[in-house]
Amino acid sequence: MDIVFSPDHHLQHGRAELTDGRLVPVYEHPGRLDAVLATLARRGFATPLPPQDRGLDPITAVHDPAYVAFLQCAWDEWVAAHGAGGDALPLSWRAPGMREDREPERIDGRLGYWSFDAGTPITSGTWRAAYSAAQAADTARARVSAGSRAAFALTRPPGHHAGSRFFGGYCFLNGAAIAAQGFRDAGIERVAVLDVDYHHGNGTQQIFAGRPDVFTVSLHADPSFCFPFFLGHADETEGGTHLNIPLPKGTDWAGYAPALETALARIEAQDPGALVVSLGVDTWDGDPISSFKLQTGDYRRMGQRIGALGLPTVIVMEGGYAVESIGDNVAEFLEGFASA
Amino acid sequence: MDIVFSPDHHLQHGRAELTDGRLVPVYEHPGRLDAVLATLARRGFATPLPPQDRGLDPITAVHDPAYVAFLQCAWDEWVAAHGAGGDALPLSWRAPGMREDREPERIDGRLGYWSFDAGTPITSGTWRAAYSAAQAADTARARVSAGSRAAFALTRPPGHHAGSRFFGGYCFLNGAAIAAQGFRDAGIERVAVLDVDYHHGNGTQQIFAGRPDVFTVSLHADPSFCFPFFLGHADETEGGTHLNIPLPKGTDWAGYAPALETALARIEAQDPGALVVSLGVDTWDGDPISSFKLQTGDYRRMGQRIGALGLPTVIVMEGGYAVESIGDNVAEFLEGFASA
Repeated sequence: MDIVFSPDHHLQHGRAELTDGRLVPVYEHPGRLDAVLATLARRGFATPLPPQDRGLDPITAVHDPAYVAFLQCAWDEWVAAHGAGGDALPLSWRAPGMREDREPERIDGRLGYWSFDAGTPITSGTWRAAYSAAQAADTARARVSAGSRAAFALTRPPGHHAGSRFFGGYCFLNGAAIAAQGFRDAGIERVAVLDVDYHHGNGTQQIFAGRPDVFTVSLHADPSFCFPFFLGHADETEGGTHLNIPLPKGTDWAGYAPALETALARIEAQDPGALVVSLGVDTWDGDPISSFKLQTGDYRRMGQRIGALGLPTVIVMEGGYAVESIGDNVAEFLEGFASA
Repeated sequence: MDIVFSPDHHLQHGRAELTDGRLVPVYEHPGRLDAVLATLARRGFATPLPPQDRGLDPITAVHDPAYVAFLQCAWDEWVAAHGAGGDALPLSWRAPGMREDREPERIDGRLGYWSFDAGTPITSGTWRAAYSAAQAADTARARVSAGSRAAFALTRPPGHHAGSRFFGGYCFLNGAAIAAQGFRDAGIERVAVLDVDYHHGNGTQQIFAGRPDVFTVSLHADPSFCFPFFLGHADETEGGTHLNIPLPKGTDWAGYAPALETALARIEAQDPGALVVSLGVDTWDGDPISSFKLQTGDYRRMGQRIGALGLPTVIVMEGGYAVESIGDNVAEFLEGFASA
């Protein structure tokens, strides 16, 4: 399996995120990917390829150019207003009834305008890291378009919470959406996206809502109790183009496997020409910010079942915050996929 | 002039607010009101009266009962989920396109559902403090309804950013709106609300939007550069029932006075039977979070001009964060008003 990786992910290293009313060290940090990289090398995976740079085109294919322009200059504007002593974090946002048609001029207001949470710091390196991750997802897709059975974009910051016009949940640019749109633009008529991260893939759902050519599925912790809260319920079908499978706290493989089968059956029924997987391993039993109970061996089963679809597949790294296990959980998934 | 005051304001003392990407000590703290109280005593104002408790009726006259129920239990829910080690602060919110029809069950999601900023901590005493402030505003209104020329509700937390269904900007219950609605319910046909706080009175605008019986005006820093950002532009007339006068950075009395005249002329044209003033003195030159250049003597002029309307008037304390000057600025306003 091709693996695409850029060391630029180190450029995204927030100082703090707001969690439980306190600023705490970020959970989404470079050590996560370093751990996966080391584990994959130890377990004999191929040496990663660097991403090819195709510029902004793959990014603006799924993100509003005004949003992209904001991300490119947000840090510089923040430093001009506040200095470089703290990360850029949104302070205020639009409650229902407030205006969506006027973007503020000041960076503090723009941060709230383009975001949905206060836990996603923008730093000096955020744009470059997110840009390289987007290129890696696009390159993985290009490898599969060129004939590879599958490719893994080993990327961070993650992407599935990023919408066409919002960042949040540690995500800025939606690599899975970029890969899916890339398949479409390369001539694949119907593409499917399967999101197995613990958290609902709200950005991916929003980007492709109502698009019959990109069927999206998310298995995730029920948004009635879990971040990102305001999207991800079962009744959001987006005109039949989307499937949400919210799961209860404490879900283990016995609860997860049937939901996965439902998702895979719906994907097969769409008869897609390619698949994109948003691979979060924060469904693992010991994840520090999650509540599911999957064991390391379960990721092998998950990979096997998804691989058995037999589709050209791009796998994009999303969440997973238990550094001690993230590498093995990813490796099990990839090995299971390859063995299918 | 009657002054209504409750020592319960001390129960709202947040530990930290998120500003400029850092958690810093709250600007909206009990010392603000202590300073005003001491200055008014020193300058010979009457001893404050305690508020009368009329229960939830005056509050739910302008706030959604579901929102009020949330405020009442938010701290207990937060402690049950996270312990009492940090204040309750929202983490995530709804970007455009996310669902407004489903309130999350978990407190973290509910905080985002009912708010518009991350700078307004909910603590163990928040509900009690906000409740007593609301009663004080209602009592001030009742004094005027009973024949007093004017009454001053010396209250915190402030209120003008609180909408029918949202908190934020240090505000939870909108005392000015409660007073205005109280005048209406006491039989005054048309009421005007004049907001002279540095920040746009977004909650007051939202609560009375489209209501021909309550004409609202706000003079404030232009939301294109200033919190709360997403409401307060000049083109928001709410069907002719509202007037916004956004002002540029650095506005001094020479710039402020003509805007105030415009506001007063519009109020007079409505021929209201009573007036509510949202009195923020964060327009003062040395305010730590604002940019206007009003001098202490300017508040006497402001009070005189507003007093010259000759209307039965409730004045409600809003912002003002320069503890060394807040008392004198308020006293100048009240003396100017009384001398008109």
